[in-house]
Amino acid sequence: MTDWGLLDPGAADASGSDDDAALAAMVEVERALLLAWGSVLDEVLDAQADTLEAAALDRDALRDGVARDGVPVVALVPALRAQLEAAGLSADRLHLGATSQDVVDTALMLVAREALRAARGSLVAAGGSLATLADAHRGDVRIARSIARHGEASTLGVLAAGWLDGVTSAVAAIDALAFPVQFGGAVGTGAAADAAAGRPTGADEVRRELAGRLGLADPGRSWHAERTPVLAVAGAAATVLAALGRIAGDATFLSREEIGEVRLAASGGSSAMPHKQNPVDAVRITAAATEAPGLLSVVASAAIAGDERSPGRWHAEWSALRRLVRLARSSAGAAARLVGGLGFDAVRAAAIVADAGPAGERPARDVLAAASDRIVDRAVSRFGGVADPTGPAASAPQEARP
Amino acid sequence: MTDWGLLDPGAADASGSDDDAALAAMVEVERALLLAWGSVLDEVLDAQADTLEAAALDRDALRDGVARDGVPVVALVPALRAQLEAAGLSADRLHLGATSQDVVDTALMLVAREALRAARGSLVAAGGSLATLADAHRGDVRIARSIARHGEASTLGVLAAGWLDGVTSAVAAIDALAFPVQFGGAVGTGAAADAAAGRPTGADEVRRELAGRLGLADPGRSWHAERTPVLAVAGAAATVLAALGRIAGDATFLSREEIGEVRLAASGGSSAMPHKQNPVDAVRITAAATEAPGLLSVVASAAIAGDERSPGRWHAEWSALRRLVRLARSSAGAAARLVGGLGFDAVRAAAIVADAGPAGERPARDVLAAASDRIVDRAVSRFGGVADPTGPAASAPQEARP
Amino acid sequence: MTDWGLLDPGAADASGSDDDAALAAMVEVERALLLAWGSVLDEVLDAQADTLEAAALDRDALRDGVARDGVPVVALVPALRAQLEAAGLSADRLHLGATSQDVVDTALMLVAREALRAARGSLVAAGGSLATLADAHRGDVRIARSIARHGEASTLGVLAAGWLDGVTSAVAAIDALAFPVQFGGAVGTGAAADAAAGRPTGADEVRRELAGRLGLADPGRSWHAERTPVLAVAGAAATVLAALGRIAGDATFLSREEIGEVRLAASGGSSAMPHKQNPVDAVRITAAATEAPGLLSVVASAAIAGDERSPGRWHAEWSALRRLVRLARSSAGAAARLVGGLGFDAVRAAAIVADAGPAGERPARDVLAAASDRIVDRAVSRFGGVADPTGPAASAPQEARP
Amino acid sequence: MTDWGLLDPGAADASGSDDDAALAAMVEVERALLLAWGSVLDEVLDAQADTLEAAALDRDALRDGVARDGVPVVALVPALRAQLEAAGLSADRLHLGATSQDVVDTALMLVAREALRAARGSLVAAGGSLATLADAHRGDVRIARSIARHGEASTLGVLAAGWLDGVTSAVAAIDALAFPVQFGGAVGTGAAADAAAGRPTGADEVRRELAGRLGLADPGRSWHAERTPVLAVAGAAATVLAALGRIAGDATFLSREEIGEVRLAASGGSSAMPHKQNPVDAVRITAAATEAPGLLSVVASAAIAGDERSPGRWHAEWSALRRLVRLARSSAGAAARLVGGLGFDAVRAAAIVADAGPAGERPARDVLAAASDRIVDRAVSRFGGVADPTGPAASAPQEARP
Repeated sequence: MTDWGLLDPGAADASGSDDDAALAAMVEVERALLLAWGSVLDEVLDAQADTLEAAALDRDALRDGVARDGVPVVALVPALRAQLEAAGLSADRLHLGATSQDVVDTALMLVAREALRAARGSLVAAGGSLATLADAHRGDVRIARSIARHGEASTLGVLAAGWLDGVTSAVAAIDALAFPVQFGGAVGTGAAADAAAGRPTGADEVRRELAGRLGLADPGRSWHAERTPVLAVAGAAATVLAALGRIAGDATFLSREEIGEVRLAASGGSSAMPHKQNPVDAVRITAAATEAPGLLSVVASAAIAGDERSPGRWHAEWSALRRLVRLARSSAGAAARLVGGLGFDAVRAAAIVADAGPAGERPARDVLAAASDRIVDRAVSRFGGVADPTGPAASAPQEARP
Repeated sequence: MTDWGLLDPGAADASGSDDDAALAAMVEVERALLLAWGSVLDEVLDAQADTLEAAALDRDALRDGVARDGVPVVALVPALRAQLEAAGLSADRLHLGATSQDVVDTALMLVAREALRAARGSLVAAGGSLATLADAHRGDVRIARSIARHGEASTLGVLAAGWLDGVTSAVAAIDALAFPVQFGGAVGTGAAADAAAGRPTGADEVRRELAGRLGLADPGRSWHAERTPVLAVAGAAATVLAALGRIAGDATFLSREEIGEVRLAASGGSSAMPHKQNPVDAVRITAAATEAPGLLSVVASAAIAGDERSPGRWHAEWSALRRLVRLARSSAGAAARLVGGLGFDAVRAAAIVADAGPAGERPARDVLAAASDRIVDRAVSRFGGVADPTGPAASAPQEARP
Repeated sequence: MTDWGLLDPGAADASGSDDDAALAAMVEVERALLLAWGSVLDEVLDAQADTLEAAALDRDALRDGVARDGVPVVALVPALRAQLEAAGLSADRLHLGATSQDVVDTALMLVAREALRAARGSLVAAGGSLATLADAHRGDVRIARSIARHGEASTLGVLAAGWLDGVTSAVAAIDALAFPVQFGGAVGTGAAADAAAGRPTGADEVRRELAGRLGLADPGRSWHAERTPVLAVAGAAATVLAALGRIAGDATFLSREEIGEVRLAASGGSSAMPHKQNPVDAVRITAAATEAPGLLSVVASAAIAGDERSPGRWHAEWSALRRLVRLARSSAGAAARLVGGLGFDAVRAAAIVADAGPAGERPARDVLAAASDRIVDRAVSRFGGVADPTGPAASAPQEARP
Repeated sequence: MTDWGLLDPGAADASGSDDDAALAAMVEVERALLLAWGSVLDEVLDAQADTLEAAALDRDALRDGVARDGVPVVALVPALRAQLEAAGLSADRLHLGATSQDVVDTALMLVAREALRAARGSLVAAGGSLATLADAHRGDVRIARSIARHGEASTLGVLAAGWLDGVTSAVAAIDALAFPVQFGGAVGTGAAADAAAGRPTGADEVRRELAGRLGLADPGRSWHAERTPVLAVAGAAATVLAALGRIAGDATFLSREEIGEVRLAASGGSSAMPHKQNPVDAVRITAAATEAPGLLSVVASAAIAGDERSPGRWHAEWSALRRLVRLARSSAGAAARLVGGLGFDAVRAAAIVADAGPAGERPARDVLAAASDRIVDRAVSRFGGVADPTGPAASAPQEARP
């Protein structure tokens, strides 16, 4: 089986979350685990860590392993052991005290963090464009619509500020996440690591070292069956997609030929109508936002878990979680392009207000102007609070400890 | 139409979120809005506020109004006006500067906060029981199961600690919520309130006053079309339900006749088998946890919103959001009963370990004992950090400002 | 707890599916079961059947029973027994051979059938209006839109025909349903009924009689843990809601002030903007269509079932299934009103085509006219095939037997 | 981006639905369309059809095209044109009268039909195994469980018969499907095809020819915006997954060490516990069944569509629909293996009954034996009605015409 993006309008942005990236993340986890053990056992394992290489692994064999074992790690570990042995190195410390779930969970957190960091960057770029739009159009009236009907007058600046509020909320949702490391061994007690370390703090030490080397949070526990950390990541990705889906929907509608308040940059074509250009980035975002609620529900269903590792629910997380963060990343990229290339037609917007009759006469213009200033300034300031690239997401997040 | 709980095993805990409660919350919003205006306009409106009464309203007329207008507030406002006029009071300030969505959104935040506060109380009670169980059974071995098979030995204390971790995460999810007030007027600009106040800060002042009187957060903006605050509440409720669903599932399985590690308090009967007692609280929680992912997906779909008030997506939030917080509340109550009446059978658990062959011989008992101590202590301490009744949820929450 | 419709724009159409109706259906099942036993045992039980009365039952006691037992039937049976005993009649045959699930499942099938029959009636009415519209406007050009952009010319008749296709598919989805009776006893074997009848065909005979008296299908088996019949009902309701949601979305958009191809009948008001009228029926349908996918996912999750009666998944069906069929009914009623009061503005539609430039010049008018005729005639004919009120849904449906 | 199955336990069965297969299906559609036009225009286009080749296409270019255009077909058509021109053949008839959606929709129907046909084959195999099990164990008592507690005695044969009922329902759900061809041109009117054919029946003729050549149903219309046919396919796949998920859940539970009524064939290993073997096929099915409801909800959300081709909802179908049918196929294969290797332990089952006290004494053994015979015979007979390989699914299905 190979899916390379034929049916995925956002595939071009998915490189960091595809199977090769996930495999690389798993190998990165095994490598960091070797180094963590090196520190805990006071051994030099750098050569072993350097030897592990994802690119050299036999993907067909791994896929067969997934089919046979239900998880990719059972086949991965011997393949990595073979790399060490081929290099004349001891494999004794490889995967020491770990279980498959430790590797898969931690690797998926790495993939999710990478995707949502990239999403965050695009969101900040989109927010910058929206802040500029909001500022530039704070004085341009438009008709605000409520329940699909002309409501009363507002401004194009307020419209952009409302979108910006969504982007700010999306960034804040990402920044609230911890991406915790997983290290619990066979059934989450860490007993094998304690035994291997020769002291009861062994698993704790390894987990802390592992988190530090991977830049993940140390949750102070194993969450092998307590899946709210995974649901939190899925929830943040869905929040990003909802906020962007709203912007894409508004932009799609407002750029309709009959409305014309919004102009979108020219984009993709049609196989039947050569004259036609489609709002492809808005479409891509809308498609992703339509998918997201169902994918979120899968992760929420899986979170019910059970046992010390559930027979199936755990496995159900993988595809849905990965797709959610992938869609968040590609949609954020699309949103940055969409609003970066988006213009308001103030003349057209004013003409609609003029045609709107009583709806267009409310509120008084000076009242609206003051309200618009206040709303735009507030939204720009709120965004400014999250946009700083040296902000919380730039450093390794810590799991919220109550 | 009247649904009074026939098909809802958790209905008995739903009093705070039923239609009467929602109506009372709406009237409470209109009342607080009068008082907010009293403060902003420097008028005495206490008599008006005191006069409004939910209990006296004609529910049939309100239901007809919902059918006619699509929202309950269009019929509610004249009914409240009539109450004021009947008392010989001016109704000029009633609903001033507000729109239907302001009342519905704020009232639903009140209902959600009430339900999740009650849930929090039950979660803390459940956590207390689990902490006691974990402590008491930290030395009692059991077999941990992974992928539905005996894994290796753990302890009953670790089992309870893992459940406690879920409860702690659930409380933390509630505590992370802001319950923001909504006040934006017809299309979210607050222009009518500014005009009524005679100054450009009018809407801001009213919103701040309103938030203060209702004990809600002042978000500093209108979120009429930026629905991530609603998605956040739904996400927290779903997190509660997932964490509890896992506990109920484990408890159901472990109390099976053939397993017997867990004993549940006697509970509901059967219409066909008089000898039989069912684990009703666990069933109730499992049912709620099965519903939650779909309800969460409804709120996530609705969050895409659009316009300055969407034609339909906004309305789709009401039932799903209300049911989610209702289920979170009733499930938390059921969980407090479930774990409060739950006992471990250490003898049976040890017998299973003895039967388990090689799986039961790992890890060494002293290693496991130390690991169990560490895990139990950590979980109890983590819970202690959220359990304090004077903690964050006890004071009025503020929306997280980035 | 009492929900009487405050938060439900479609509540006015929900009378047949509220808790009183569900309770009445349960009593109807117990009554029909008495008569079925009368026939199987050759006894006269008509007086007993006539004595059972839903209206006289104590709803508070039943609600307490649901909370205690997790199902309403455990408390219902003694209450019905008391009715018989108060009338001096023997209660020996009451609930004979049955279990709670038999009553709940069968009653919910009655409720679902009633709701979807009513939905069918409204769909046929809506289809009639659409057929008329399609026929009347087959020659009126409009611009067809693809990916939110002008595509090429079509006709208003083709637009209505496309909506009609959805209505026809919705009716066909309802007509494909069997509404099977449930009768399996404690664990689905029917053994108690066999024993009570004194012959091994007892359960089969009772089930067949019961189906006949209730007008439900006899599935020839018990489906207590094989929930695909429930998923089928939910799927049909979701199909109805998707088909109607598309029509409502199109009608909402096309009736926007700037588009104006569609005129909707005047409808509900606004609490902030007295000049404004909202497309309430379209809103109601859109809200229901937004809820439906999540509710469908709940029923699909519950369908995984387990055991001979699952601890929680079965219970999770009740609310979601009932709400789905309720929304299908109220949305179909709203759709009949919506399209019954909907008019096309052929002059405005032609003007848009004229403005559309190259998009409006394709295809040639004579080609389009012929295509429009063909499409309209086909859609009207396809609808005619399902619209007949003496058609399949009018008679008792039989479960599809392979 | 390349996903090759690392995170997908069912990937080994996904070959017929991966991106290469979907691309091959698209080329097959274009090829059949050429031949259909050859017939309609009375031209010989066989050489052109033979020249088109999916394997030779540049996948990177197609993926870039998807990113640019939002659909893969805009880049595909020129690439196919280049193949024809390189062979010195005219490309005039290529993609004639078609639009991107015609190709994507029809290709996805081919992919879905292929996947569900394969699923059907596996289901029939699984059903055969279950019928044998049911027959062999009709006399072996076991305790039936209700609400996670011992209910009363049943038989292992009844258990297998209940699973078989689910398999039969799953096959019937597939057999009820039409897989319709899509051919409507730019906006669904078929006008371009009519014009190219030089007669008003052109589009109808091409669609009929296309359906015939691809073995799909001719729906007599275009369903570009009436997506209930897609929802029907998704619903059938979800039905398969729910029915199998129940079996996998029961088998997982009943094969627990403490229960032991069911023995599963040895399967995949663990990276931490060498002694351990996991029920991998049951896990795979459970994971798929956990994913399915959310994926179904995506297709149901997308079905609301809008316009003559929706800006985003249409695109949201692709990934969810494809994954649903892929999971149905791989799960059916896993189910055939699971039940093929599954054995009942009648001695252990009888011992549990003996331990069950009053629950095990009901019903009387002769009554149960007769009931078991009846239930097993009925289930085997019902399965026999769908199992025939020359049955309905073996011939080209026709869309259900009301």
